[in-house]
Amino acid sequence: MSEVKSSPSGGVRGGFVLVQCPATVANLVCGFDILGMALAEPYDIMKLKLIDEPKVIITNKDAYNLPTDAEKNVAGVVLLSVMEKMNNQFGFEVEITKQIKPGSGLGSSAASAAGAAVAANHLLNHIFSREELVQFAMNGEKLASGVKHADNITPCITGGVTLIRSIHPLDIVQLHSPPLFVTVVHPQIEVKTSDARQILRKEVLLKDAIKQWGNIAGLVAGFEKADTDLIGRSLEDVIIEPVRSILIPGFDEIKTKSKEAGALGGGISGSGPSIFMLCKEEATAKKVEQIMQEIFTQLGIDFKTYVTTIAQEGVKVVNAK
Amino acid sequence: MSEVKSSPSGGVRGGFVLVQCPATVANLVCGFDILGMALAEPYDIMKLKLIDEPKVIITNKDAYNLPTDAEKNVAGVVLLSVMEKMNNQFGFEVEITKQIKPGSGLGSSAASAAGAAVAANHLLNHIFSREELVQFAMNGEKLASGVKHADNITPCITGGVTLIRSIHPLDIVQLHSPPLFVTVVHPQIEVKTSDARQILRKEVLLKDAIKQWGNIAGLVAGFEKADTDLIGRSLEDVIIEPVRSILIPGFDEIKTKSKEAGALGGGISGSGPSIFMLCKEEATAKKVEQIMQEIFTQLGIDFKTYVTTIAQEGVKVVNAK
Repeated sequence: MSEVKSSPSGGVRGGFVLVQCPATVANLVCGFDILGMALAEPYDIMKLKLIDEPKVIITNKDAYNLPTDAEKNVAGVVLLSVMEKMNNQFGFEVEITKQIKPGSGLGSSAASAAGAAVAANHLLNHIFSREELVQFAMNGEKLASGVKHADNITPCITGGVTLIRSIHPLDIVQLHSPPLFVTVVHPQIEVKTSDARQILRKEVLLKDAIKQWGNIAGLVAGFEKADTDLIGRSLEDVIIEPVRSILIPGFDEIKTKSKEAGALGGGISGSGPSIFMLCKEEATAKKVEQIMQEIFTQLGIDFKTYVTTIAQEGVKVVNAK
Repeated sequence: MSEVKSSPSGGVRGGFVLVQCPATVANLVCGFDILGMALAEPYDIMKLKLIDEPKVIITNKDAYNLPTDAEKNVAGVVLLSVMEKMNNQFGFEVEITKQIKPGSGLGSSAASAAGAAVAANHLLNHIFSREELVQFAMNGEKLASGVKHADNITPCITGGVTLIRSIHPLDIVQLHSPPLFVTVVHPQIEVKTSDARQILRKEVLLKDAIKQWGNIAGLVAGFEKADTDLIGRSLEDVIIEPVRSILIPGFDEIKTKSKEAGALGGGISGSGPSIFMLCKEEATAKKVEQIMQEIFTQLGIDFKTYVTTIAQEGVKVVNAK
C-alpha cells in the first residue's frame, strides 16, 4: 500500500456521497476464483458521510435485516479497515439500500464492500489506489464468506470484465469487454458461499485442469479479440459446475434450452444459485429470460430475472456534496 | 475434414517443394498442453516430391539415424495419412535435413510432422485447411510420443504464439505475439517426452490449478495486449515445472540468474531438457545466453545455445518447382 498522503480536509467532512454499486458475476463459468464481470443491473445504493467520532453508524434502508453492528456488517468492516489505515481520525455514517439480494450469487456482499471502499475514498479525496480499494473491500468478503477473494470486488470497483491473476501479490488485469447482453435468473433458494465451497473436491484430475485452462485461455482471448463465438465455445466448466449445479434445480435444462435459443453460453453466477447467460442480441437475451421463467414456474420455485448488459463502469458516484 | 476437392494435377507431379520447419517451444511455462510458440531458429529442411507409386521413400541427410521405414518415421506416417485421405493415388519422396536435434524439447518431431503436412499440401495445390494439416501432423506426434498433441505442431504450421483451446474438437486460436527475443539452451542430456509425462501426478490440488489458470489467463492477456511485464509476471508454473525441472541440472540457477539479468521469465521448453527465456532486448537475451553457457560449462554438460526471436511465420516454402 502507498503511504497515506493527506488526511481528509475539513471542507469534505460533513459532505456526503451517494454511490451505485453494481451486481457482479464471478467465475464466468471456467474462471473459478479469477474472473468476474460487472452488470448494469441490479445495483445497491449507499450513502456515506464522514463523521468526527471514530465509529461506523449503519442504517439499513431495505428489508434484508442485515446486521448494523459495524464489525458484523460487510460495509462496516471495510470502513473500519479504512479508518484504521487513517489512524482512526474520523468515522462514517452509512445508509445502505440493498437491491442485490444477499445469497443470490450476484455479488451482494461485494457490492457493499466495494461500494463502501469507493465511497470512503471519494470522501477522502481519492487518496487510495485501485489495488488499495480492492484490499480494503476484501475484508468485507472475508466476513461474508470466510475467504479474501476479489473476483466480485474487482469488477464491482472497475467495471467490465476483470482478471485476478494473483491474490498474493494482488495482480489485477482489466480485460476488454464486448457489448454483450446478460440474462440472469435468481431462483429464490439458498446456497451459502461457504457450503458451495465445501462441496468442491480439493484435488482435480490433471486432464480436467488442462481442459479448464484451455477454456480459460480461450475465454480471455475471446474477450480481448471481441470474438463472441470463441467466448461461447470457451464457456465450459468441467471442474466446478458439474459439482455445484446439482444444488440448483433446473440448471441443465436452462443451459441447454438457452443455448438452443441462441445464447453464447453461461452457467452459475458465482457460487449460485443465480444463473447467467451471455447473448449477442437483446432479442435473444429476452428469449432466454422467457425460458428461465418457464422452467422455474414449472418447478414451482419463485424467481427474479434481469435482462441487462455488462456494465463498463464499476461503483459510480451519482450524487455528492 | 472437408471433402477432397481435386486430385493433384499432372503438372504438379514431378515438381518439388523445399520447406523450412521451425523449432517450437510448447507449454510456455504455465500453458501445459495448450500453448506453443514458433522460433526463428533452429529449423529443419525438407524436400518433397510427388511420385506415382503409392509409397513414401525417405532419405535422411543428417547424422541422427532416424528410421527410413515410413511407418516408423514421423514425416512418413504423416504422409501415409495424407495418401490414405487421397485414396493412395500417389506417393512421396522425401529428403530430411534435421537441424533440430531429436529429444531436445524444441519440437523436433513436430517440425518433421508439420513440415511433411505443409509441403504435401503445397504439392497438392493447397486443398487442405489449417485444421486438416494439424490433424495429419498429429499422427506424427502420436508416433513420436504416444499422444496426439498439437501444441508444437500448431505454432510450427502457423507461426507466432498459438492456443489449442481444445483437441476434441480441434479449436486453434492464433494469439498476438509481440516482438520478443528468445534465448534457448539445449543441454545434451536425454529426457524422453514419454518419461517426462509419466512423472507427472494424475491429480493436482485445486488451489494450485487456480494459481495456474490465473497465470495462463494473465499470459494470454499479456500476449494480446502486448504487455510484456504482464507476460513476465504470468510465466510461473506451480504444477509441471516443480516436477520436471528435477530432471534438468542447473535449471533453478539458470532461471534465477536469467531473471536477475533482465529476462521476463521462461522455463522448460516442452518436456525438456531445453530451457528458454523471453527477453525484451537482444542485449539481455545475449546476457542470458552467457549465463546459460557458464552454468552448463561449470556442470560439465555439453550444450548448444540459440539467441533468436518468435517466428511470425510457420513452415515456409523456400523453393519450389
